[in-house]
Amino acid sequence: MTQKTPTAAGTINSHAGTPASRTAAARPDDRALAERLKHRMDHKTKPLGALGRIEALALRIGRILGTESPELRDPQMLVCAADHGIAARGVSAYPSEVTAQMVENFLAGGAAVSVLARQHGLALTVADCGVAAPVPARDSAPGQPRLLSHCRVAAGTADASVGPAMTTAQCTQALENGRAIVKSLPGNALLLGEMGIGNTSVASLLLARLCGIALEDCTGAGTGLDADGIARKRAVLQQALEANADATNPFDALAALGGLEVATLAGAVLQAAAERRVVVVDGFITSAAVLVATRMEPAVLDCCVFSHRSGEPGHAHLLAALGAEPLLDLGLRLGEGSGAALAWPLLVSACAILREMASFEQAGVSRQRD
Amino acid sequence: MTQKTPTAAGTINSHAGTPASRTAAARPDDRALAERLKHRMDHKTKPLGALGRIEALALRIGRILGTESPELRDPQMLVCAADHGIAARGVSAYPSEVTAQMVENFLAGGAAVSVLARQHGLALTVADCGVAAPVPARDSAPGQPRLLSHCRVAAGTADASVGPAMTTAQCTQALENGRAIVKSLPGNALLLGEMGIGNTSVASLLLARLCGIALEDCTGAGTGLDADGIARKRAVLQQALEANADATNPFDALAALGGLEVATLAGAVLQAAAERRVVVVDGFITSAAVLVATRMEPAVLDCCVFSHRSGEPGHAHLLAALGAEPLLDLGLRLGEGSGAALAWPLLVSACAILREMASFEQAGVSRQRD
Repeated sequence: MTQKTPTAAGTINSHAGTPASRTAAARPDDRALAERLKHRMDHKTKPLGALGRIEALALRIGRILGTESPELRDPQMLVCAADHGIAARGVSAYPSEVTAQMVENFLAGGAAVSVLARQHGLALTVADCGVAAPVPARDSAPGQPRLLSHCRVAAGTADASVGPAMTTAQCTQALENGRAIVKSLPGNALLLGEMGIGNTSVASLLLARLCGIALEDCTGAGTGLDADGIARKRAVLQQALEANADATNPFDALAALGGLEVATLAGAVLQAAAERRVVVVDGFITSAAVLVATRMEPAVLDCCVFSHRSGEPGHAHLLAALGAEPLLDLGLRLGEGSGAALAWPLLVSACAILREMASFEQAGVSRQRD
Repeated sequence: MTQKTPTAAGTINSHAGTPASRTAAARPDDRALAERLKHRMDHKTKPLGALGRIEALALRIGRILGTESPELRDPQMLVCAADHGIAARGVSAYPSEVTAQMVENFLAGGAAVSVLARQHGLALTVADCGVAAPVPARDSAPGQPRLLSHCRVAAGTADASVGPAMTTAQCTQALENGRAIVKSLPGNALLLGEMGIGNTSVASLLLARLCGIALEDCTGAGTGLDADGIARKRAVLQQALEANADATNPFDALAALGGLEVATLAGAVLQAAAERRVVVVDGFITSAAVLVATRMEPAVLDCCVFSHRSGEPGHAHLLAALGAEPLLDLGLRLGEGSGAALAWPLLVSACAILREMASFEQAGVSRQRD
């Protein structure tokens, strides 16, 4: 972004120099808590470390929530949806109209994320952050999926292959919308989901730009391109990188290459981490939103749990760049938050293990021999 | 086993030539059902294959249960416990008394499997198949863990490092007990768990004998041996293979090298598969029971879902021998059925996806472009 308004620049600076109340920085008692958590886990009736990564997960959630007895309350699945100007360049196997259709499907209860949210008791909020065909507002019964329309910034982004996808003001607004949505949601856990035809392109572009990874390693089939389609997509993404060559800092890259749902999600992640909620990351696109958020505020990473490694090839590179080791590796590549929802019971299990398992002393079980 | 009674031999033959009513062999309509299941999954509102291995899991469960709308009912977690003569040779980091103590812990609700069974609504049955110190019988309130004592064959096995662990009659009885337990349980899904100090040794021996894999690849730390301990364990296991060199067929190997809980589990797997229940396999020891069962009746494998790849190194070899690809890979090495319980929600999700997701037609969502 070559031109910034003073107001927007001020907002940008507030990401760089985030007020203390908003940061997820380590608290003074973090180390003592981490030691108490480890002591508690190591005295459970099992061989040391025998629950593998479930133990590390329990300790992480305990540190995020600041307690030795973590309990996940009122988990919120937030699905941010938007359209992308670059989709007109044929970077997806599906037409843009599918974004709005799938939002309707989320709300009607027929999509994968709807089914999985019902199974696990996750409150489902769908945010129209910029769907090309606006989704009509509607009433929602308690316990039913809810549509947020007030966070709609535009009817999709501009085509990033010829210039910035968003204006500075649009991107700033989307980030603030994400913060405001999280402030309005109850509970101590946020699961991230998204919908937007063309948004694997956005994730690929952000990965290439912010991590310096070659575009060919960042680009995959998305919803189902064939080899020719991937080659065409890569050529379009190369044009987008060139058309936005000066957008190198996290905010500028987000505005120039990002999507309105990705920006909204980045704001949501920043707010959730500031409130020390557990953030459950889904696949490639939500990980790209986390990437942007961590470049604005590195400590947010401490609050993130990565649910799965996507079948979309760029995701492995993105996870590696974040130093993240996801829980599941099932070849998922649907998005919507479906992977986050599938992994959710593992987080609940990790907390239950820490809270409910007996210690050797409590159960009268003999310890390991010397 | 060099000497068999005619009765026992007859029982053995009934495993080799299993009556048709007991087999899990493919039914004539299996292929048509498989095609209908695939058609149904492929028309859900998602890109083809985008739910990765969850799709294959849904199709498998549908084929096991013989329906396009699979629903898992009354899931049963069966934890079989027993002691092992070979444990006296120092093959475990824990003393044998821990087997009985952990059974008490299962029943009191403080063990990992107790916690996870509660979380997921799995009915927990603990079978004393041969715990050295008998676990006192007790009443169990509805919904609480239940102890079965009638399937106790002996106060543990003999030391396999000097001769057969079980007599032919004991092994036959344990197999029949496993069948009888499953017949007595409701529901259409069986999750396998076990407890028995020394039973990674049993699994290693069965893997080495039945799959011809080098003992050093089959042997690991179990509950927590150090390198010297593993070397000692391997030497003892080598003695057990030599002391039972003629036990090469599945039944003989099970009797000579196996444990009472492993034999009971093998019987349970055979019965569950004959009834076309979904069998959820836990880690190294329950996989060894499945290995034995598949060598007696190959079609049982069609009914098995492998929940996780254990941190115990032999398990990867055992899974490869079975051609099994587990759902989770979290470095678990606890047993008890804990991995099966952790993976359980993925099975529930797979069924819900198949039953509840809308098709493109139902949701009015546009299909992929040509």
